[in-house]
Amino acid sequence: MTMFAPVTPPDTAAAAATRARQDTLTKPRGSLGRLEDLSVWVSSCQGHCPPRQFERARVVVFAGDHGVARAGVSAYPPEVTAQMVANIAAGGAAINALADIAGATVRVVDIAVDADPLSARIGAHKVRRGSGDIAVEDALTEQETRDAIDAGRQVADQEVDGGADLLIAGDMGIGNTTAATVLVAALTGVEPVAAVGYGTGIDDAGWVRKTAAVRDALFRAEHVLANPVATLQCCGGADLAAIAGFCAQAAVRRTPVLLDGMVVTAAALIAEQLAPGARLWWQAGHRSTEPAHALALARLGLDPIVDLSMRLGEGSGAAVALPVLRAAVATCASMATFTDANVTDRPSLP
Amino acid sequence: MTMFAPVTPPDTAAAAATRARQDTLTKPRGSLGRLEDLSVWVSSCQGHCPPRQFERARVVVFAGDHGVARAGVSAYPPEVTAQMVANIAAGGAAINALADIAGATVRVVDIAVDADPLSARIGAHKVRRGSGDIAVEDALTEQETRDAIDAGRQVADQEVDGGADLLIAGDMGIGNTTAATVLVAALTGVEPVAAVGYGTGIDDAGWVRKTAAVRDALFRAEHVLANPVATLQCCGGADLAAIAGFCAQAAVRRTPVLLDGMVVTAAALIAEQLAPGARLWWQAGHRSTEPAHALALARLGLDPIVDLSMRLGEGSGAAVALPVLRAAVATCASMATFTDANVTDRPSLP
Repeated sequence: MTMFAPVTPPDTAAAAATRARQDTLTKPRGSLGRLEDLSVWVSSCQGHCPPRQFERARVVVFAGDHGVARAGVSAYPPEVTAQMVANIAAGGAAINALADIAGATVRVVDIAVDADPLSARIGAHKVRRGSGDIAVEDALTEQETRDAIDAGRQVADQEVDGGADLLIAGDMGIGNTTAATVLVAALTGVEPVAAVGYGTGIDDAGWVRKTAAVRDALFRAEHVLANPVATLQCCGGADLAAIAGFCAQAAVRRTPVLLDGMVVTAAALIAEQLAPGARLWWQAGHRSTEPAHALALARLGLDPIVDLSMRLGEGSGAAVALPVLRAAVATCASMATFTDANVTDRPSLP
Repeated sequence: MTMFAPVTPPDTAAAAATRARQDTLTKPRGSLGRLEDLSVWVSSCQGHCPPRQFERARVVVFAGDHGVARAGVSAYPPEVTAQMVANIAAGGAAINALADIAGATVRVVDIAVDADPLSARIGAHKVRRGSGDIAVEDALTEQETRDAIDAGRQVADQEVDGGADLLIAGDMGIGNTTAATVLVAALTGVEPVAAVGYGTGIDDAGWVRKTAAVRDALFRAEHVLANPVATLQCCGGADLAAIAGFCAQAAVRRTPVLLDGMVVTAAALIAEQLAPGARLWWQAGHRSTEPAHALALARLGLDPIVDLSMRLGEGSGAAVALPVLRAAVATCASMATFTDANVTDRPSLP
């Protein structure tokens, strides 16, 4: 499987230079905590010390429907997916407000919404109308799976070619946490009951239906888990495949990514299989309340930047974290050094 | 003791209206987690639904020296306080970079730096040069304590009168975590060893010296703890007294405050005694790595917005949290409702 060019790691020399620079800035060593680590990471992604502030941070929301939503696994009816695509395109969704605060712009891409595309541009990468009901059938054909991964790759290429210097993937799709939970449970080996959450706010009966659907899909997926494309085909979905392709290609293109919640992080687990080493180009924006999200983050070895009990998707958690990343860059790039400011540094420790 | 006018609580009607409004916005109910709670809080402080975005967020850094610094309780020499006041005034400190990212401006006030004031404006509220060594003597006279509290009150009045709609208090002073730790240990009743941290980065021998100083100051303070002014006089400091006055008066003036780290939160414990109910006007920006900070937050019943292993002071942790507060306001104020966007809401739960 050679769908992606090899991922090269971030620049360790730039990282070391930035780590050293942090110790010259007018503050106690290490006192900016996580901000210092994040500045080093951004610097290593950019191959430049000090890191540069993001000029074109971009959120791409991948929208798709899921046949499994008809099994009553969500608090919302499936038509909400298309309605929310229109809402995002019109600027009325949470991600629009959050991206604005964070200095990012938003694009929504219809990968598999069960409706006609809202516009030619939004539908340019559409693979099909809705993915299959993974409790009883494959989500996609093999060709559709490859097309969806490739759609994500193309979108990443478009954004990077267009100047994006930070990418956020978001999701929109009624039923998508069910498919994402299957992927996380399958790839981390946990039982459905330990992974299934309340998604958009189902009740206990809904949780039982969702857990049954996850169990059925996991049973169907048992024999394909060694193959990430086959896994997406069997129990993923076109939107998840596109997000995986997007996250993988961003890493190939040496562009840092802030992961969002449960759905994006499930796709990122697959992306790391498609393009090993890609995770070095990612940070986890936040930790959501979905139990499978914490499992996926642990598997990827990622520590979320904020933890605000959010569970919305759309890229919303990553957008809230983006100002923290900007703060990390700003302090490292613009603070005075002890020498510049004539501030007495402490004696070096032995 | 009637130093402060009574604190009136935030507006519960506005809070209820904003809570209800959240459920009409195009997202699953409650899915923005803490952001929803913060939007309700801002709304209640402003007495307006939806909340308004902050137009004039202001950081005030209170600077002061501490005689106890001569006992080797800090990794940095005392002259750094005055040097850092100049660095903040010149825009080279961490708080300058962080405030810029957060859309806030910075003012530094010399309350008790052990040097001539950098300028007439910065020194306009100066109480004395350095507070006393609390391990062996009172930090201040009673009159100085009242003057310092009043300085913080005056600064809060100036900022609110100048249009500030969100205030952040910051601190700068070598040795100030030692005095702050004494206040927290005294007011929460914990032993010094459970409260003393590594501050700006002392070694183990420094920690032992710091813990001894805290123990000595606590012993001196034993009989004055029922009186917040006497407590500040005995084992606080002029900068801590000014921060307490500032946080209390902000509440009197119905202006929301983001608390910063250990030093500001220690002063806030005193402020709540000076002006009961003031804490309803505060949120905790972050949790620092200092053990006494967590104790003080717990005593005030405040849950920090971010937790990034920072330990710098200056208002830096609160400044990093400010964009989260802005995100909370922005989503509540600008998202489309289900009705506006023609998005299908889920059926009401029974």
